[in-house]
Amino acid sequence: MLGSLVYVGGMTTENAHAQRDAAGLTVGEELARIGYLGPLPCPGPAPYAFVEAHIEQGPVLEAAGKRIGVVTGVQGISWQELTITGQSCHAGTTPMALRHDAGFAAAALTTEVRALATQLGPPQVATVGVLEVHPNLVNVVAARARLTVDLRHTEEASLQLAERRFAEAVARIAAAEGVQISSRSLARFEPVEFDCDMIGRIERAAARRNLAAMRLPSGAGHDAQMLARVCATGMIFVPSVGGISHNPVEFTEPDDLLAGAEVLADVLWGLAHEE
Amino acid sequence: MLGSLVYVGGMTTENAHAQRDAAGLTVGEELARIGYLGPLPCPGPAPYAFVEAHIEQGPVLEAAGKRIGVVTGVQGISWQELTITGQSCHAGTTPMALRHDAGFAAAALTTEVRALATQLGPPQVATVGVLEVHPNLVNVVAARARLTVDLRHTEEASLQLAERRFAEAVARIAAAEGVQISSRSLARFEPVEFDCDMIGRIERAAARRNLAAMRLPSGAGHDAQMLARVCATGMIFVPSVGGISHNPVEFTEPDDLLAGAEVLADVLWGLAHEE
Repeated sequence: MLGSLVYVGGMTTENAHAQRDAAGLTVGEELARIGYLGPLPCPGPAPYAFVEAHIEQGPVLEAAGKRIGVVTGVQGISWQELTITGQSCHAGTTPMALRHDAGFAAAALTTEVRALATQLGPPQVATVGVLEVHPNLVNVVAARARLTVDLRHTEEASLQLAERRFAEAVARIAAAEGVQISSRSLARFEPVEFDCDMIGRIERAAARRNLAAMRLPSGAGHDAQMLARVCATGMIFVPSVGGISHNPVEFTEPDDLLAGAEVLADVLWGLAHEE
Repeated sequence: MLGSLVYVGGMTTENAHAQRDAAGLTVGEELARIGYLGPLPCPGPAPYAFVEAHIEQGPVLEAAGKRIGVVTGVQGISWQELTITGQSCHAGTTPMALRHDAGFAAAALTTEVRALATQLGPPQVATVGVLEVHPNLVNVVAARARLTVDLRHTEEASLQLAERRFAEAVARIAAAEGVQISSRSLARFEPVEFDCDMIGRIERAAARRNLAAMRLPSGAGHDAQMLARVCATGMIFVPSVGGISHNPVEFTEPDDLLAGAEVLADVLWGLAHEE
């Protein structure tokens, strides 16, 4: 969503070009290398409206037997990276009480993240997706660890509560294990509510084609949440088989893709032809 | 300790040469490459006695204010590698109740390993040194994870108890998270007790030089535990500053190294000159 964020003025072009991946490559240099480094200034002109069609990437539509998801908004997202510094030592000779085990602290934080989601209940989701320890050897207590935490909620106040609970767990585990834990934000977006008029247009378009529809929030982030800052915005979902996404078996039935495309076309035609 | 294990007949030369590292290189090919692939058959002739001097790699001697450790034996070692298979999915759209998170299961096993050591109490030590998740991305629930568990105890029955407790935790966590967990043994050595006569020789040698000494078991594995299968064996420890080992700041005072070498020389001289 970097492109849409820059387009709406949420980040400068220079800052976006300076973003670096894990291999050290920058967005700007790579755009130049593949011939996509464009000259137009950002933020760009605001469109009249923005409508995005997407697979749900979750199990809700399939479970409810609906063809069309009328997206009410996008969950707030909080991404943090935690770096833990302990002390490497010999796994055979170091008594448990003398350890400052960065790997154990990372594992304890990971189980706290699950406990936090369980205690707060749906729609809170919380994930540790990255988990690395160093030196990563069978007989050495880990000196360092790195992990990421992905917290999402449809309500900003609830997302902030989850962030506070996690910060408390970080402080508690750092003190108990005698390790240093530093954190930095990788991404933070408040929940977004889509335009009421756009939601109504999508619902009416689905009804005219006799497609069973339901309202639902998006669990994933999308360009639409960036465009919603500058224009009326809506989103159309179609079902993901088994709710599976971010996995090679991700699949949506061709008929469902067609249904979503037809609703998208109808809504765009309506927007283009109104007075 | 691969060389000493082969020397005493605990593993065939062919099996040792076929061992492969993480980069896929074999011991046999690498020995040939550096010119160390020798022609002599194993097991080799049993020596009359074997005495090994080593840094303690732990905090016991320093804490007790002793210069010489008279090693009574070596802890039993159990190394396992666990491979966890879950299902990757989208961290934003997948409700917590539908997850089969290999990374969470790995973290839960890691905290169980710590709990096991705490419950069983010293001298039980238990360590997760290797911890990896795939695909290791911030917004993807992990499909797979790999970890190692290092369990050590001076008593074989206690080590087996720790292994059973860990196996129970594996079964419980696999069922609760809906993941598959397979394990394989990377190494398993029973505790070794050194020869009583050798222990006495080392104690007397330290006393003659007015070096403060104490008996203690070794937490780390050593060649001496392999030689103990075929001859009278003993070990001499000197203090590790801060108990730190497997860490770049590992250090032993030169005077302590000298003290250990003198005790070693005295014991060897006594063995060589007795009738």
